[in-house]
Amino acid sequence: MALDNNWFSEICEESATAFSLQVSEKLHEEQTPYQKIEIYETKKFGTLMVIDGFIMLSDRDNFLYHEMIAHPVIFTHANPEQVLIIGGGDCGTLREVLRHDGVKKASQVEIDERVTRLSEQYFPELCSANHDPRAEIVFSDGIKWVHDAEPQSLDIIIIDSTDPIGPAEGLFSAPFYKQCHRALKPNGLLVQQSESPLIHMRILKDMYKAMRGSGFIDIKTLGFPQPVYPTGWWSATIASKDKPIAGFREQDVLKKKFETQYYNAQIHRACFAMPEFFQRQIRS
Amino acid sequence: MALDNNWFSEICEESATAFSLQVSEKLHEEQTPYQKIEIYETKKFGTLMVIDGFIMLSDRDNFLYHEMIAHPVIFTHANPEQVLIIGGGDCGTLREVLRHDGVKKASQVEIDERVTRLSEQYFPELCSANHDPRAEIVFSDGIKWVHDAEPQSLDIIIIDSTDPIGPAEGLFSAPFYKQCHRALKPNGLLVQQSESPLIHMRILKDMYKAMRGSGFIDIKTLGFPQPVYPTGWWSATIASKDKPIAGFREQDVLKKKFETQYYNAQIHRACFAMPEFFQRQIRS
Repeated sequence: MALDNNWFSEICEESATAFSLQVSEKLHEEQTPYQKIEIYETKKFGTLMVIDGFIMLSDRDNFLYHEMIAHPVIFTHANPEQVLIIGGGDCGTLREVLRHDGVKKASQVEIDERVTRLSEQYFPELCSANHDPRAEIVFSDGIKWVHDAEPQSLDIIIIDSTDPIGPAEGLFSAPFYKQCHRALKPNGLLVQQSESPLIHMRILKDMYKAMRGSGFIDIKTLGFPQPVYPTGWWSATIASKDKPIAGFREQDVLKKKFETQYYNAQIHRACFAMPEFFQRQIRS
Repeated sequence: MALDNNWFSEICEESATAFSLQVSEKLHEEQTPYQKIEIYETKKFGTLMVIDGFIMLSDRDNFLYHEMIAHPVIFTHANPEQVLIIGGGDCGTLREVLRHDGVKKASQVEIDERVTRLSEQYFPELCSANHDPRAEIVFSDGIKWVHDAEPQSLDIIIIDSTDPIGPAEGLFSAPFYKQCHRALKPNGLLVQQSESPLIHMRILKDMYKAMRGSGFIDIKTLGFPQPVYPTGWWSATIASKDKPIAGFREQDVLKKKFETQYYNAQIHRACFAMPEFFQRQIRS
């Protein structure tokens, strides 16, 4: 069946597939110094943000990504107080991070201020923690920010970036990971969105290699569903500065004071299980 | 970006989304007494089978579904010898079942012989176990077959059906589950493909209710990625005749003699973890 003009389609060249959402209205379009941002109202996925033709997030399913990039790494760390978010301009990750009472400061370093301003306008619920006194919102180059950071000053670095092509390419590179390693405190953890294991194993293998070469001593990938991203299955990868990634603060998860829609202790235990094809390729 | 005529698109009405595959050729189309079957050659997903406009399977990603509908339930059962597959006309589930040496007989009861004949032609690798002496391939109504089955004659029933609309609707109903319960031996297990928890919770809730009302004493849903199905995240639900579903033959998984691409012991332990939204809705 052909799709008429009432659909927004994103083509994934790697798999020769496309994902489409029925839209009722284009709410906004602008070219920033960095990228083209479009906002649509969809029929059943709420508001949709698209950057350079790639779907970034929708009202309906962003909870999956935002919960899974934030809570597993935070509950894995024994005492996370200082958190840095690179990218994440929609502020959804910042909101999840600040649900944790123990976090004393969360800095969000997004290169394109317009992403955040449009998120404030079109995704206000994602921006509900922007005025938390622990939040620092910076519009700057994340690579430079990490380079200038004090050594051993951060507990967790969250790399909430676009795909490793174009502006975000440097965020998947060994020089950047080395600076992250330097900026992390002892026991520090980094987490990065790491594409779909079903079609992006080359990116994952390169990432593992670059992380290992930058001093991180343990690396684990976690998976979760994400309907609006290619294949519908997405991942995040955690790298540990100086000790094995093992266990998590399960009791704190069980008594957490905030609600989640996807994440829970069962999911935490389960999300690191990776398929045979993944394990074979990462080992080789 | 609009999709031209070189794409096959399946629209999912429930979510107002669509999934599309770039195709190079339509290989076959026919109307059987039951449904319309189309076969396409795609650019990067291999051969594709479509029934009544809904994608059934592709070369590239059918391993996810076939492994996950077969191996978790089989390794959960202590000693599965007699297996019945309802539907499953492409024969991929039959192949996975017969990888297990302990299985003495696997009967596949598909209503539409043309599905199997076209699978033999276009998906020959899925049909590689069709001539196994333990395989019985029947073209008949699965509901009637179960009704006529001897009481306590089966260890496992696998319901590998299309969606619960049209011909498969009766396969999601309490009268059918009651007949399955009767036909299962003590310790018997049923497993059914159970749609996407992200958009089909109503179907899942109704299924749980019907299974509970039919005498099954424990029910657990497992999840797995499936790019060609709506949302990219799919599920299967296991119902146990007379004892809790707990643990599995992990040692047998670790020393299994056949290769898998997705399933392994880690995945088995993990696949039953269900998100918060699922647990809340199934409990309510």
